[in-house]
Amino acid sequence: MVMSLNVTIKLKLANRPGALARVLDVIAREGGSLGAIELVSASPSHTVRKLMIRLHQKGDLEGLTRALKELPDVQIIQIADRVFTWHMGGKIEVAPKRPVQNWEDLSLVYTPGVAVISETIAREPDMAYKLTMKGNTVAIVTDGSAILGLGNLGPTAALPVMEGKALLFKQFSGVDALPICLDVHEPQQIIDAVVAIAPAFGGINLEDIAAPKCFEIEERLAHLLDIPVFHDDQHGTAIVTLAGLLNALKVVRKSISEIKLVLSGAGAAGVAIAKILKNAGVRHMIVCDRKGAIGRGAQPQNPFKAWIAENTNEDNLQGSLKEVIAGADVFIGVSAPGLLQREDIQRMNKQPVVFALANPDPEIQPEEIYDIAGVIATGRSDYPNQINNALAFPGVFRGTLNCHARSINDEMCLAAANALAGMVTEELLNPEHIIPSVFNEEVAPVVARAVEETAGRTGVARKILSGENQEKYSF
Amino acid sequence: MVMSLNVTIKLKLANRPGALARVLDVIAREGGSLGAIELVSASPSHTVRKLMIRLHQKGDLEGLTRALKELPDVQIIQIADRVFTWHMGGKIEVAPKRPVQNWEDLSLVYTPGVAVISETIAREPDMAYKLTMKGNTVAIVTDGSAILGLGNLGPTAALPVMEGKALLFKQFSGVDALPICLDVHEPQQIIDAVVAIAPAFGGINLEDIAAPKCFEIEERLAHLLDIPVFHDDQHGTAIVTLAGLLNALKVVRKSISEIKLVLSGAGAAGVAIAKILKNAGVRHMIVCDRKGAIGRGAQPQNPFKAWIAENTNEDNLQGSLKEVIAGADVFIGVSAPGLLQREDIQRMNKQPVVFALANPDPEIQPEEIYDIAGVIATGRSDYPNQINNALAFPGVFRGTLNCHARSINDEMCLAAANALAGMVTEELLNPEHIIPSVFNEEVAPVVARAVEETAGRTGVARKILSGENQEKYSF
Repeated sequence: MVMSLNVTIKLKLANRPGALARVLDVIAREGGSLGAIELVSASPSHTVRKLMIRLHQKGDLEGLTRALKELPDVQIIQIADRVFTWHMGGKIEVAPKRPVQNWEDLSLVYTPGVAVISETIAREPDMAYKLTMKGNTVAIVTDGSAILGLGNLGPTAALPVMEGKALLFKQFSGVDALPICLDVHEPQQIIDAVVAIAPAFGGINLEDIAAPKCFEIEERLAHLLDIPVFHDDQHGTAIVTLAGLLNALKVVRKSISEIKLVLSGAGAAGVAIAKILKNAGVRHMIVCDRKGAIGRGAQPQNPFKAWIAENTNEDNLQGSLKEVIAGADVFIGVSAPGLLQREDIQRMNKQPVVFALANPDPEIQPEEIYDIAGVIATGRSDYPNQINNALAFPGVFRGTLNCHARSINDEMCLAAANALAGMVTEELLNPEHIIPSVFNEEVAPVVARAVEETAGRTGVARKILSGENQEKYSF
Repeated sequence: MVMSLNVTIKLKLANRPGALARVLDVIAREGGSLGAIELVSASPSHTVRKLMIRLHQKGDLEGLTRALKELPDVQIIQIADRVFTWHMGGKIEVAPKRPVQNWEDLSLVYTPGVAVISETIAREPDMAYKLTMKGNTVAIVTDGSAILGLGNLGPTAALPVMEGKALLFKQFSGVDALPICLDVHEPQQIIDAVVAIAPAFGGINLEDIAAPKCFEIEERLAHLLDIPVFHDDQHGTAIVTLAGLLNALKVVRKSISEIKLVLSGAGAAGVAIAKILKNAGVRHMIVCDRKGAIGRGAQPQNPFKAWIAENTNEDNLQGSLKEVIAGADVFIGVSAPGLLQREDIQRMNKQPVVFALANPDPEIQPEEIYDIAGVIATGRSDYPNQINNALAFPGVFRGTLNCHARSINDEMCLAAANALAGMVTEELLNPEHIIPSVFNEEVAPVVARAVEETAGRTGVARKILSGENQEKYSF
């Protein structure tokens, strides 16, 4: 993975003309991008400044440090990696909603007052949605077996990612999310652990669990629990991909039922995307794994690839990705970097839609095909049209928590995708803007409303404390 | 359990002389204690006020409501149970330590920046203490099998209690505590679940798990995990009880090695108290369960009662609690209400120390023995000398987290008790003040320092990122 480096450099500069300018020259020459400059302190003879700098790779830091040391009038006080400084001490904390200030408060929130709350919940378990954190809280569960693009680094190494996700949950939709990093790896053990911890949560977000075990785990947990279970690497990706595709097809004026679509990747994301596309009306779809197009003859052991074999590739085409992509209207990749070349895209149908979502390096670099593609999307924030799960999961769980949903069904995922697509109005829609930004504060509420309404319509919403029930606690 | 009721009554009062005074009369006559009065709104003809009222029992509310309705010039707008209003929506939430404001922030806290943090932890697992929430976070784990004095109400009903505890953890010592309510009940299942979730936590606080399974669960988890495991109902109670006893003995001028002590109750708290007392130097101790004094002949099946049989009651006395209490210097009860009468205390040695800790109703009411006891303590906040676990657990875990302890040992518990006792100086010490208040902000830091120092001395503290290691992340 190509990783840029974000550093903060603290410098002591003599108050002489051009001292700071020479520093900026050196940074530019050594390939650094300069962000903010803070003034830390100033005296008649010196100033101390903090410079935020992004470098393309870790090695660049040595060159920059050497060059800065050679400057007169400049003394390096400290160089810190901003990713590390941000993570020091963790990214989330527990906050009391109201402080406990005296004996009376204590007697209300803890013993003896809390006893009547426990007794109420023992009698009416659904009251936990109203009287505890459960109604606003989800567990983010991982075993660390598929962390980002890094593979199986284990549960402790997954914790910073889960915390980051909890941060986004809270910030984008007010959902309280607790990281649960599991030190067990067999599907049955993971299922047992999640069932065991479920009572405190209004939903389960499975995260970074490797395929194919992720499919079995999600399916069985959804069956065992009476709260939504949502594997974000599958359904979050699928929802945002479908939303992007719906808008991309508007741009190129093609109909979802008519397009020929080639999907590369049959892992967690690939299988879920194939299923949501089928539900959304895609009729002509070919899914490729490493060996090429999956067809009727394949007889895969994995039941999820079996679903693909039975439900896609109606003409039972054989061949490699590069072969079957000929004549396709849409390519969606959730596979590996650099699988396609410009010539492959040229062999697609007119105005091809290319979603090269492999992260951080896409199946084909957008620069290679700007002039021949109708719409291009990636998983990256430095190109237009980023397919980012953070557009889905905060609103999806906000919606399910709002109505205390018992589960998440296909209709709710489709509704989320349609709502997300609908946020890009006709006037704003263009080849470089098919999907809203994750910093658009309207996204989560709009997705939540669609999910909540669909939950109500499809019968998975719980009704708690309506009418007479409410009166019991407000005499 | 006798439960008082805290209500908020919202009234609309005509602006006529004496209207509010008549309301206060009615409240007093119906047995209510008046707390704050808020003015909600005022107009030329009316005022709306909110009155906080405590009633002795739920039934009193009907009488009060009837009497208020009979008053002229008064209209009841709403009556709400304050315990319920406080709990609505839960008591804790997840808070980001720093907000994510733009793409650059996002790239630091989540993908791609977070990848280097995950890789660092995968290489050096102890770095999780520095780079994630782990270093400040404990799990409060229960199966809901022994909630307060209410018994086995199950894991969901335990959640409000666990949230209350999390609130106290944060407020008293800045520890982030996450409620984990387990829907499994066999010891092996509870152990498996806790081992599974352990990676994200710097400590495990077991809570409200029934005896005798709590002993086995704690012992085996302490062996399996490399973080402290602390069953608060055992050791929290034991630490605070010992602290109180040390000071009570100063008041009555007796030596811990000479006293004869009778302990009633051989559940979670009783066993832990017996062990810490033995470690603290008590030599003459008799423990009673429901059947009377536990002696050598008992041969209990439960290995923890077997410890008591082997390590207490040196003279192998037989008989009921009321028989063996004759001549004792100290009585400690963690058993059941009303087991003792004034005559029993009269048969104890001079200046008897009586810790009647059964909750909410003690083994003997303090009123019955004020004139004959040397020192009296209870578990209640409405008498002097409250033995409250909240004096121990916040500081104990603060101390273990500060030094990333691998475990909690007997020395650390003893140090916590001694530090707590030491907070009541000789000038302040008297029969009605043997223990500090839970609202004394010095308590947790003092306990934490003692625990941390002892962890260092006994070799259970981790060293992370000292010296050269630190430099890796601060170039």
